[in-house]
Amino acid sequence: MLNYRFIGKVLGHILLALSVFMLVCAAVAFFYGEDDMQAHLMAALASMSFGGVASWLWRSTPDEVGRREGFVIVTLVWVVMSLFGSLPYILSGTIPGFTNAFFETISGFTTTGASVVSDIEALPHGILLWRSITHLIGGMGIIVLAVAILPYFGFGGMSLYNAEAAGITNDKLHPRVKHTAKLLWGIYVVLILLETGFLMLGGMPLFDALCHSFATIASGGFSTKNDSIAGYSPYIQYVIIVFMLFAGTNFTLFYFAWKGKFKKVTENREFRMYLKVIAIVTAIVTITLVFLDHHNGEESFRKALFQVVSLLTSTGFATDDYTAWHPYLTYLMFLLLFSGACAGSTSGGIKIMRHSILFRNTLLEFKRMVHPNAVIPLKIEDKPVSSDTVYKVLAFVILYMTIFSIGTFALTFFGMDMDSAMGAAATTMGGIGPGIGTVGPVDNFFAVPQAGKWILSFLMLLGRLELFTVLILFSPHFWKNN
Amino acid sequence: MLNYRFIGKVLGHILLALSVFMLVCAAVAFFYGEDDMQAHLMAALASMSFGGVASWLWRSTPDEVGRREGFVIVTLVWVVMSLFGSLPYILSGTIPGFTNAFFETISGFTTTGASVVSDIEALPHGILLWRSITHLIGGMGIIVLAVAILPYFGFGGMSLYNAEAAGITNDKLHPRVKHTAKLLWGIYVVLILLETGFLMLGGMPLFDALCHSFATIASGGFSTKNDSIAGYSPYIQYVIIVFMLFAGTNFTLFYFAWKGKFKKVTENREFRMYLKVIAIVTAIVTITLVFLDHHNGEESFRKALFQVVSLLTSTGFATDDYTAWHPYLTYLMFLLLFSGACAGSTSGGIKIMRHSILFRNTLLEFKRMVHPNAVIPLKIEDKPVSSDTVYKVLAFVILYMTIFSIGTFALTFFGMDMDSAMGAAATTMGGIGPGIGTVGPVDNFFAVPQAGKWILSFLMLLGRLELFTVLILFSPHFWKNN
Repeated sequence: MLNYRFIGKVLGHILLALSVFMLVCAAVAFFYGEDDMQAHLMAALASMSFGGVASWLWRSTPDEVGRREGFVIVTLVWVVMSLFGSLPYILSGTIPGFTNAFFETISGFTTTGASVVSDIEALPHGILLWRSITHLIGGMGIIVLAVAILPYFGFGGMSLYNAEAAGITNDKLHPRVKHTAKLLWGIYVVLILLETGFLMLGGMPLFDALCHSFATIASGGFSTKNDSIAGYSPYIQYVIIVFMLFAGTNFTLFYFAWKGKFKKVTENREFRMYLKVIAIVTAIVTITLVFLDHHNGEESFRKALFQVVSLLTSTGFATDDYTAWHPYLTYLMFLLLFSGACAGSTSGGIKIMRHSILFRNTLLEFKRMVHPNAVIPLKIEDKPVSSDTVYKVLAFVILYMTIFSIGTFALTFFGMDMDSAMGAAATTMGGIGPGIGTVGPVDNFFAVPQAGKWILSFLMLLGRLELFTVLILFSPHFWKNN
Repeated sequence: MLNYRFIGKVLGHILLALSVFMLVCAAVAFFYGEDDMQAHLMAALASMSFGGVASWLWRSTPDEVGRREGFVIVTLVWVVMSLFGSLPYILSGTIPGFTNAFFETISGFTTTGASVVSDIEALPHGILLWRSITHLIGGMGIIVLAVAILPYFGFGGMSLYNAEAAGITNDKLHPRVKHTAKLLWGIYVVLILLETGFLMLGGMPLFDALCHSFATIASGGFSTKNDSIAGYSPYIQYVIIVFMLFAGTNFTLFYFAWKGKFKKVTENREFRMYLKVIAIVTAIVTITLVFLDHHNGEESFRKALFQVVSLLTSTGFATDDYTAWHPYLTYLMFLLLFSGACAGSTSGGIKIMRHSILFRNTLLEFKRMVHPNAVIPLKIEDKPVSSDTVYKVLAFVILYMTIFSIGTFALTFFGMDMDSAMGAAATTMGGIGPGIGTVGPVDNFFAVPQAGKWILSFLMLLGRLELFTVLILFSPHFWKNN
C-alpha cells in the first residue's frame, strides 16, 4: 500500500512554493500595469488553496519515503506543477485552450522550450516572466532529481554518473544530499546572476536579461523575442553561448574550480568529450557555411557554434534556421537532438556520459572478440565500471530509441509528416525545443494536431525524468503488494 | 601472423565453385541464343584461372583455421565473390560502370535485392539468371555462416540463437556442423523446388519461376520483371507470400516438422512472435487501406500482407508502392526495415529473436527496479539466458543503430535527401532492397551518387555479416600479434 498521505503532503508543499512564484508574476504585472495581474493572482490563490489544504490535512504524516513513493512523487510533481502552472495562461487568455496551455507549461517545467506561441512579443510581461520561471523551477527540480533521487533509484546507469556527478562516492563533495543540493542551487543562482549581468552589459534590459538567463541556465530555451536570439548583437550571442556551455557542464565541476582543483575539471572525461564533440561539429558546420555557401567567416562560426551548443545542451535557442542549411547539416543537427550534454547539468536527453560508455564498450567488444577468454572491464578515469552499470546504460538507450520510434509513429498517425514527427519526438524527449520539418527553429508547435500535443507533452515528461521513473508507474509489478 | 595460405586456398575453392555457376549461365545464354554468352564464359575463365592457381599453389596447406583466419575469410569471401561476380555484368555491357556492377553483385550475394537496373526485362536470360544465382549462392553462404561460423565467433548474442537455431545445444539436431549445414541446404533446395513447382502451376514459365524461387528462399528480392510481383495473378502473389514466410522461418523448424515434432514448431517463441508481428502490422495496413482509402478488401489484405512479409523477411519484392500510402503506414514500413525475421533463416537485419530479448529485458528491468535486490534472469522457453548474451544483444543493436546513423549522414553528405538516405541505409543494412523516398519500391538505386553506392555496398556487407565480423578487421587489437 502506497503512503498516499505523504505523497499528498509533498505535492501540497510544492503547490505552496509554486504560488509564491505566481505572486511574483502578479507583482510584475502590477508594476507594468498590464491586465494579466488578475490571472496570476487567481492562479496563485488556486495553488495556495490546494497546496494549503493538502499540507494541513497531512501535516503530521512522518517523512518516511520508500522507493515506490519516490517514483510516484517525482512524476506527479511534474504533472501537478504543469496542471496548476497552466492556469496563468488559461485565465489570462494569452494561450487558447487547455491543451496548448498545458503543452507550454510542461515544456517550461521540463526545460524543453518548445512553444505554441506565435507572437511572443505580444505577451504581457507577467506571462513572459511566468514562462521563464517555469524553466527556473524546472531546472531547480532537475538538480534535486539528479543529486538526490535518481542515484537512489539507481537505473539507466544513473547511479554511476550521478554519484560521480554529485561526488558522493570517491571524491566526497558533501555526503549529505540536502547540503549538496543547496550547494548546486547556489551555483545555479550564481550562474543566472552572472549571465544577467553580462547580458545587461551588452545593452539588454533587466527584464529580458533575467528571462533569458533563467532559460539558459535551466537549458530551457523560451525567449522573450519572436526570433529568439537572432536579433541580438554578436556580443550577446557569445555571452549566451558561454552560459549555455556552462549550463551543460556538470555543476560539481564549478565547485571543484571554485576550490582551485582545476585538474579535476580538465581531467573529467565527460567534460572533455563534451568540448570535443562541440568543436568537431562546429568545425564541420562552419566549413560548410563558409566554403559552400560563401558566408562571412566570423558570422558562420558564430551561427554554427551557437546552434551546436544550443541543441547539444538541449537549450534550444536559435540564431539561424538550420533546416535551411545543407541537408547533411540538417541531419547532423537532427542527430544532436539525441546527444544531451553532461550528467549533473540541467541538460536533457541521453547525455554524453552514456554515449561515452556506449562508444567505449563497443570498442572493448572488439577487444573481447579477439581475446574471448579475457575479462576486459570498461574503465572511466581508471576506475572500472560494473558490467551492471554498462548493461543499464545499454538498456536505457534501447528504450529511448524504442520510445522515439513509437512516439514518431503515433505522431504520423495523427497526421504529421515523417520528418516533422521524428523532429518533434526527438526534440521533446531530449528537452530541446526546435526540431526539423514543420517544427524547425523558425516555426512553433501551434499547428501540431491536438492529440500530437498530448503525445509530445508525455514525451517531454518521459525524457526529462529519464524514462523509467515515469514508465514504472505503468508496470504491473509496481502495483503488486509485496 | 595470419595463415594467409589457408585464406588463399579457401578463396580459390570458392572461385572455382563460382565459375561453375557462371558456366551454367553461359549455357543458358547459348540455349536462348543471346550474345551475353561470351561474357559468362570469360567471367568463368577468369574465376577459374584465379581460383585454380590459388587452389593449386596452396593445395598442401593444412586445414587449421583459427578465429582470426575465420573473420578474414568470411568478409573476403563476400568481397571476392562480388568482385568476380560483377564480371558478367561488366563484360556483357548490361550494367554500365564498375560501381554499378559491383553494387548489383554485392546486393545479390548479400541477398539484399537493391538494384541499379531500370529496365530489367531488357536484360538477356543469362544475365537475369546470374542475378538470381547470386541470391542462391548468397543464401547458401548465410546458412553455413549461421550454422557453423557465427556460433563459433559467439558475438552479438549469436551464440545463443544460432546454437538454438542449429539445435546444437539442448535439442541436439546433429552435433556435427558439416552434417547440419548439408541438412539445411537440403531444406533450402527443397523449398526452392517446391516454390518453382507452385509458381509454374500458376502459369509462370520455368525460367521466371526458378529465378523468383532463388530470390524468395534466399530472401533476396531480385525479380525478372520491371514491376516486381505486381503484375502477377493473386494466386502467384499468395504463393510467393507463403514461401517468403518460409524463408524467414528458422530452417531447423522444417526439420522438426519433417520429424513430426510439431510441438517444437508451435512452441518456438521466436516463430510465434514472427507470426504475431506480421498479423498485427498486416491488420493495421489492411484496415487503413480499406476504410480510409476505400479499396477492395481482398486486394487490400493481399497488398498489405505481401508488403509486410516482404519487408519483414528482408526479401524486398513489391506489389504496391507503400511510399504512396498514408504517412503513418510508410513510417511503419520504414520501421519494418529494422525488424528482420527469425534467426537461422536467410533473412537479414536485427531479427525477431534480438527484438524479443530487448523487449522482454526492458519489461524485466521494471521488475528489477521494483525489487532491486532480487536476481531476475531473462528466460526463453523456460531456459535462463545468460546476462552475457543479453548484454551482447544490446551492444549489437546499439552498434546497428549507430552505423545506421553514420551511414545516413554519409549519404546525405554525398547529396541524398534525408528520407531517402535513411531508407537506403536501413534497407541495405537489413538486406531488404526497397527503402523510402527516392529509393522506394517503384524506384531503383541507379540515381544514387557514385560514392553513395559504395557506402551502400559496405552497409550491405556489414548488415549481412552481422556487423562485428567485418568491423573487427578494422580493429587494431585484431592485427596485434599475441
